[in-house]
Amino acid sequence: MTPLEIEILGYIAGGIIAVALIPQVIKSWRTKCTKDISVAWTLFYLAGLVFFEIYAIGITSIPLMITNVIEIALTGSLLYMEFRYGR
Amino acid sequence: MTPLEIEILGYIAGGIIAVALIPQVIKSWRTKCTKDISVAWTLFYLAGLVFFEIYAIGITSIPLMITNVIEIALTGSLLYMEFRYGR
Repeated sequence: MTPLEIEILGYIAGGIIAVALIPQVIKSWRTKCTKDISVAWTLFYLAGLVFFEIYAIGITSIPLMITNVIEIALTGSLLYMEFRYGR
Repeated sequence: MTPLEIEILGYIAGGIIAVALIPQVIKSWRTKCTKDISVAWTLFYLAGLVFFEIYAIGITSIPLMITNVIEIALTGSLLYMEFRYGR
């Protein structure tokens, strides 16, 4: 694969992962019920994403940087709903 | 940051994200209830991880490669439970 092809693949992968949480956030917001979702998962995932953002900056990976920020926002809003609507 | 520090940071980030889904998988396996979890999220996330694995191989990122494989296995088992225990 050429560097451009790899970069495009990174954008596709990151794009899919970034939008992945959107249906989850919409579902939780609609049902106002998040009891089956693990708060531990949300907290670990959020912490991992923050570390990954620093790693992405370190390796200068634009796809990682952009998608991570979107993921952090979505995971953060999901965590907010978990505490708001109870477990 | 030195390349080694960046690499270590990548391992920490990937390690946290890789273990993040473990409490979710345990919770779903114990409660046998996954109705609050979006199947669309699980499917998109799994697809994204597969693309990310190819990207990780492309940029020769060992942390991404290892953690992605763990993530794929955990997400796959969660998806199995979602269909097994109903939505």
